[in-house]
Amino acid sequence: MKIAIVLYPGFTALDVVGPYEVLGRLPGAEVVFVAEEPGLVLNDQGSLSIQAVAKLEDMSHPDVVVIGGGPGQLDQMSDGPLHRWLRQVDQTTQWTMSVCTGSLILAAAGLLQNRRATTYWLQLEELRKFGAIPTDERVVTDGKYLIGAGVSAGIDAALTLASKIVGDDGAQALQLIIEYDPQPPFDAGSESKAPRSVVEDAKRQLLGS
Amino acid sequence: MKIAIVLYPGFTALDVVGPYEVLGRLPGAEVVFVAEEPGLVLNDQGSLSIQAVAKLEDMSHPDVVVIGGGPGQLDQMSDGPLHRWLRQVDQTTQWTMSVCTGSLILAAAGLLQNRRATTYWLQLEELRKFGAIPTDERVVTDGKYLIGAGVSAGIDAALTLASKIVGDDGAQALQLIIEYDPQPPFDAGSESKAPRSVVEDAKRQLLGS
Repeated sequence: MKIAIVLYPGFTALDVVGPYEVLGRLPGAEVVFVAEEPGLVLNDQGSLSIQAVAKLEDMSHPDVVVIGGGPGQLDQMSDGPLHRWLRQVDQTTQWTMSVCTGSLILAAAGLLQNRRATTYWLQLEELRKFGAIPTDERVVTDGKYLIGAGVSAGIDAALTLASKIVGDDGAQALQLIIEYDPQPPFDAGSESKAPRSVVEDAKRQLLGS
Repeated sequence: MKIAIVLYPGFTALDVVGPYEVLGRLPGAEVVFVAEEPGLVLNDQGSLSIQAVAKLEDMSHPDVVVIGGGPGQLDQMSDGPLHRWLRQVDQTTQWTMSVCTGSLILAAAGLLQNRRATTYWLQLEELRKFGAIPTDERVVTDGKYLIGAGVSAGIDAALTLASKIVGDDGAQALQLIIEYDPQPPFDAGSESKAPRSVVEDAKRQLLGS
């Protein structure tokens, strides 16, 4: 099973590494990190680079595509090589997965028309502009599209996808292998759960205002 | 605040990227991925490389050290440059954090003598060999040592560390920024919660037997 994970400058690392850690451990998985140009791709924080080992066009028939989000998503919203590749490989993929604002790229490429989807909590309504149906769930499945909410939601989305590929027992083994028994010290991981002042602080950090 | 994140061949990517995504967003954080030799460092699955931008000795006074685990940990258990560096920087670090079997490296370097610690669920008793006290908790704090259990536990550990550095409100903002509102599709993330057959399957995959 060929899994293409898309990188672009300004990606958020956990968006792609969370799913990678799960999906890369599926039996027979062959993961290839792809980008418009091979080589190092620098993330949003500017301090982590992951190596893209292949160009998009070198990976013409992946079984699974994973695309994450991050501030760099804003530069991937125009029609161009990434959108063309996403549309082309979509004709033969078994599954297409996004995390965070990666779904906005899929939607802008035309792949989420009339499909239920989610994205980063701050951008949820953006999906509507591209014909998708914003859905306030952490993991949304619509046909072969597995759409995760922000950043860390990629782990939950990938386990959901894993269960569809290898069944519930196999997915649970992967959950145990990554010891995913989450115990966050706070319950502030969504806009509805975090204290109002924390939401405002997060928005200030995210929007730079 | 200078944060050194240690890479070595055969590391598990999520071990380091989970904490990175949290700690790198602390106000004034400067993250440097370090390794014995700078350059690309290949992970345990053999399909993801992160760039180490500095040698260990180039980062002589980090405020925070983060070391993850993975199968490559086994090659980092002998005294050598990494152990010497860990001991040296430990004299001035404010916090030292490990994830997964990274704690076994800290312990082998002599830093966890008589300290409570945890590690990957399969290796917990190994800690005893190096004078640490195995503790079956997901995040263990002992003095300035923040020790997370396996792989994904680094996110919980990093939020715990963040709360010590910037307070609970600041840590909660980071939790919201990475939208960490975990909703795994199964409750199989620890040996005590997963069905017996799933534990056996995971062990077979991990031990290759």
